[in-house]
Parts: sequence; C-alpha cells; structure tokens
Amino acid sequence: MKKIEHIGIAVKDLEEANATYNAVLGSEHYKTETVESEDVSTSFFKIGDSKIELLAATNAESPIAKFIEKRGEGIHHLAFAVDDIKAEISRLEKQGFKLINTEPKPGADNKLVAFMHPKSVNGVLVELCQEAPTSGSSES
Amino acid sequence: MKKIEHIGIAVKDLEEANATYNAVLGSEHYKTETVESEDVSTSFFKIGDSKIELLAATNAESPIAKFIEKRGEGIHHLAFAVDDIKAEISRLEKQGFKLINTEPKPGADNKLVAFMHPKSVNGVLVELCQEAPTSGSSES
Repeated sequence: MKKIEHIGIAVKDLEEANATYNAVLGSEHYKTETVESEDVSTSFFKIGDSKIELLAATNAESPIAKFIEKRGEGIHHLAFAVDDIKAEISRLEKQGFKLINTEPKPGADNKLVAFMHPKSVNGVLVELCQEAPTSGSSES
Repeated sequence: MKKIEHIGIAVKDLEEANATYNAVLGSEHYKTETVESEDVSTSFFKIGDSKIELLAATNAESPIAKFIEKRGEGIHHLAFAVDDIKAEISRLEKQGFKLINTEPKPGADNKLVAFMHPKSVNGVLVELCQEAPTSGSSES
C-alpha cells in the first residue's frame, strides 16, 4: 500500500456536508461524481496527499443509505492507493484475508477498486484502489 | 488543515492488530506508546505522508473500551495536522462548530490535540493535532 488515497464519509445530504467540510478543511470540494452502479453521489476534497470523499445515497437501496440507517453518518471506508490491484488482491488472499471483491471493479474518481471484508481488518472497510487506464463514469 | 495526520482505529488486542496491519500494509509498526491520561495503548504505522494509529484500551474505563462495547472495532477518529491548533480551535468555534476540547491537550506521538464534536462533522470524530514543542509522554 502506497498511501491513504481517501477516506470515505457517509452523509445524508451532500450539499450540506460540502458546506461543512468546506468550513472544516478551509478548501472547496473540487469534483462531484455520481457512481450509478453503486447508487451513490460523491464529492471530493483534497487534503495533503489524500482526499476526503463524501458519499450520499441516490436511492433507498444504496449501501450508503443502509449504512446510515444502521450506524448513522460517519466514516464509511478507508482507501489505500496501490500500483497493481490484482497483485494486491492475490497477495492479501494468500495471507488469509477475505476480499469482498476478488476482481477489481470500476469505482469513483477513475479508479479500479476492491474492498476487503471488515471482519478481516478489525472492523475497517478497507478499499484498495488503483488508477484506471481509462475513465469509465460520469463526472461534473 | 494541512493533511491527514493519522487515522485512529479502535482494536481489542494490540498485538493481533499489529500483525494484521503489518500484513495489510506490508510494513511494520514503528512505535508503540501508552497514553495514560487517555487509558490507551497505541501503535503507529507509516503510510505515505500519514499514519495509522491502532488504539487499544488499557482498562475498562477507557474511551476505546466504551467505543468497542458500543460499536465494535473500527475507525475511531480522523486526525488532521494543523500548524497552530489554538488558531484553528478559535476559527472553528467562530464558524459555529462544537469542540470537545476548547483548549489543546497532550496526545500520543508528541502532539497537542483537540477533538471536534462528531455531531458537528457528520458523525466523524475529528482530531486537530499540532506537533508539541517538547515531548510529554512515555515512548518505547
């Protein structure tokens, strides 16, 4: 793992949360993006060499809606940047970790992503993410 | 805020969690430290320009014991590095944020720290931390 790529934070209202994190961080979000396959709208802030990704549900079936219903708003996942996501998945599986995604899938921010099972990693939903070769989702 | 200084993760067993994060991150923890005033033992990993801080309770009254009892193991807080913690506390209070610590207090890793109330920040326990002028707690 190279660095913390981003922290994903589940929020109810993306506009309100943008205003809150704008005030906390002292910087504006630089991108919003809807990932339809995941039923989420996202908003990104730069912070040092990492990002804050705010995540809001686009419908009641969204994993973010279910997360907030169960636990309330808060940190949803911790994403690490990797150079070769397939090699990392293989390495982690060999070490006995359980992966939710054994194959990389397209995520927000032009990334290929895979999640580790939180039970393997002390309750933390860990995301591996690698820059995707080509862009695959809508941005604004 | 300058960067993500660290992510604090509440764990039951520091030795087991050290082994887990050693395997996930592909690097060894470089420091353990007990903060008696907070009833926690901590362990630090470097990751890019940030750190992972594993936190285990040293007794049943520890905030970490109470966190795990209520929510299970997982991400406990998100810490941002600041140059001038008193100025940041003042700035955030003026913007209407609620601070748990309105005065900086000594934290792990030779830092002065202050926590924002999670209700102010979409359920995230945000820690501000500034490098302390002199070391104040025991290290190993």
